[in-house]
Amino acid sequence: MTTASFSIGVDLGGTNLRIAAFTPEGERLDGISLPTRVAAGPNAVVKDMCDAIRALHAKFTPQRSFAGVGVGSPGPIELPSGKLRNLPNFPGFDGFELKLEIERVLGLPAIIENDANAAALAEYLHGAGERHGVDSLAMLTLGTGLGHGLVLQGKVWHGLNGMAGESGHGPLDPNGPACGCGGRGCLEQYASATAISRMAAEAAARGESEAIARKIAASGIVSARELAQLAAEGDHAAQQVYREAGRYLGLSLAHQVNALELPLYVIGGGVSSAWPLFAPALFETLRVYSYVYRLNQPADPEAGAVDKTKISIVPAVLGPDSGLRGAAMLPYQAIGHS
Amino acid sequence: MTTASFSIGVDLGGTNLRIAAFTPEGERLDGISLPTRVAAGPNAVVKDMCDAIRALHAKFTPQRSFAGVGVGSPGPIELPSGKLRNLPNFPGFDGFELKLEIERVLGLPAIIENDANAAALAEYLHGAGERHGVDSLAMLTLGTGLGHGLVLQGKVWHGLNGMAGESGHGPLDPNGPACGCGGRGCLEQYASATAISRMAAEAAARGESEAIARKIAASGIVSARELAQLAAEGDHAAQQVYREAGRYLGLSLAHQVNALELPLYVIGGGVSSAWPLFAPALFETLRVYSYVYRLNQPADPEAGAVDKTKISIVPAVLGPDSGLRGAAMLPYQAIGHS
Repeated sequence: MTTASFSIGVDLGGTNLRIAAFTPEGERLDGISLPTRVAAGPNAVVKDMCDAIRALHAKFTPQRSFAGVGVGSPGPIELPSGKLRNLPNFPGFDGFELKLEIERVLGLPAIIENDANAAALAEYLHGAGERHGVDSLAMLTLGTGLGHGLVLQGKVWHGLNGMAGESGHGPLDPNGPACGCGGRGCLEQYASATAISRMAAEAAARGESEAIARKIAASGIVSARELAQLAAEGDHAAQQVYREAGRYLGLSLAHQVNALELPLYVIGGGVSSAWPLFAPALFETLRVYSYVYRLNQPADPEAGAVDKTKISIVPAVLGPDSGLRGAAMLPYQAIGHS
Repeated sequence: MTTASFSIGVDLGGTNLRIAAFTPEGERLDGISLPTRVAAGPNAVVKDMCDAIRALHAKFTPQRSFAGVGVGSPGPIELPSGKLRNLPNFPGFDGFELKLEIERVLGLPAIIENDANAAALAEYLHGAGERHGVDSLAMLTLGTGLGHGLVLQGKVWHGLNGMAGESGHGPLDPNGPACGCGGRGCLEQYASATAISRMAAEAAARGESEAIARKIAASGIVSARELAQLAAEGDHAAQQVYREAGRYLGLSLAHQVNALELPLYVIGGGVSSAWPLFAPALFETLRVYSYVYRLNQPADPEAGAVDKTKISIVPAVLGPDSGLRGAAMLPYQAIGHS
C-alpha cells in the first residue's frame, strides 16, 4: 500500500541542472545536481535530465505513489506548449520543444513552467505567501537576471501565451543601459546581481571607491555579494549602488502596486540577502511614486509583520531552491492536491 | 408578469452626475443628467442621485423587474465598503461613506465601483472585449485624468482594498512633472487631455507653433480636441505633442504587457478619438520596450483585427457613456446574469 506520494522537480539553469524529489508538503526527499551541458545542445540536456528523473523515480517507487514531473525553465517559453523562445543564455535552444522532447524521452507527461513562476508558486505555497495567508502575490527574483512571477487567486498567472511575469523588463529609464531584451533601462539593468556588479564597476571607474577598484583589479569583477560585504564595512560607493538598486525596485513596485494592488510582493534571489542595504531606498521611493501603496502601507513596512489589511513587501522565506521546489509542486497543483 | 429586467447605473463625475436605466444587454432605456453639486457637499449629491434613481425606478416598475443600482465613482475608493478616500476634484468628500449613505437614503443595496473599472467592464461585456472574444482586458481612459481598469478572467480586478487599476500613476519619468497623486512623471502627466493641453502650451511657449499660441491667446488654453484639429491640419508641434503622448502610452503599456500579457488593451476616453495621431508612436515604443509584445504582436497592430493568439491594443468601441453603462451592469454581474 502506498500512503505517501512524491513528485520530481527540475530546475533548468544556465549553469546547473537540478533534479529533486519532494513530498506534497514541500519536503525534499533527495536530489541530483549536474552541470547544464548547454554547448552539447538541447537533446543532450534533456537526456541528462531524464536520466536523473528516472533514477529518482526508481528510488521512491513503489513505496510512494508518483504524482508527476514539473520543470522550471528560463523564459521566454510558450505555455502550456512548453516551446522555448530565444533564451538569452541558451544558444541553439531557440524553438526547442522542451515539453514534447522530455515527454518523448521519459514516456511520461511533464508540466513546464517559467522558473520565476515556479519560484513564486513555492513562496505562495510554502514561504512568504503561506506566512502572510494571502491568495495572491508577486515575486521578484534578483539573480543573474531578474525574474518575475505572479500568483493570482491561488493560480500562477500565465498571460495570453505564457509570457506574463516579465516586470524585470519594465522600462524605468528609456535612455538607460541597453538590455539583452532589446529595450533600455529595464529593472534588470539596475537590480539584478549582474547590474549591481556593473554599477559598482562604474562607480570604481569614476574613482568613487578604492576598495571596489582593488577587488576589480584583483579578479576583474566585484560580485554583488562582495559589494554587499564592502557596503557592510562602510564603503559609501558600495552603499550607494545598493541604494540605487533599491530606488529602481521601488519604481518598478510603484508600477506593480498601482496596477494590481496585490497584498504581497516577495523579493528573492541572491541579492535579496542584502535586504537592509536596499530596502530603505525601496520603501522611500515606493511611498513617493505610489499613492496606492501610501494609502495601504503597514505601520512598519521594513519589519514585514503580517497585516492582512495592508500591502506587504518582504524578503523571500525560501532559499535558492524555491524554483526547484515550485517546479516539483506543479504536478500537485495540476491534480488539485495543494 | 415581468419578462424583462432593468438596472440603474450612476456615473458620478466631477462636473456631471448621470443616472440611467439599462437592460442586461446594455440597451439604454432612459436617463437623467444633472450638474454635480460638489460645493453643496456629499449629502446634497447623494440626495440628487437618489431622487433621480427613484424617478427612473418608478418609470420602469412594475413592467420590468429591478436588478439593482450600480454606481461608478472616481477613485480612490475603498472597496467593497464604498468609502471615498481623498478624491482630487471633490473637496470635502474625503472619508465619505458613499455606499452606506446611498443605501440609507434609498433603502436599497447599491454596488459601488471605481469609474475606470466600470468602463472596463462595459468594454468587456459590450465593447472591444466582446468583439475580440477575450476573458481579460485592461482599459486606459484618457480624459481629464487617466483612468485604468482591469477585467481578469471575467471579473473586475479590485486588488487588496479596491485600489488596483492606477497605472495612470505609474512613474514613467521620476524627474517629470509633479502629479496630483504626490508622485512625478506619471502617465497621467503625458497622456490625459489635461496633459496634452499642458504639453501644447509648453510647445507654444517655446515658440514652436504660432497656431497653438493663437488659440491660447484667444481662450487661455488649447484643448486636446483643438490640438488634434491643428495636428490634422498639419501643425508639426501639435503632431509632436500627440506623438509624445503615444510614446508615454507605449512605455506604460510595456510595463503592463510585460507584467500580465493580457490579450487585449483598450484605449478609451475623449483623447482616444485622436488614435491616428498617437497610435504609431505607441506601437513603435511598445515594440522597443516590450519583448513580450514583440513576440506576440499581430501582423498589422494598428488595424486592430481580431486575432485571439496575439496581443491586441485597440481604441474603445463604446463611447463616453462606458462608465455609466458599466455601472449599470454591476448588479447583473453580482447576481450572475452576464
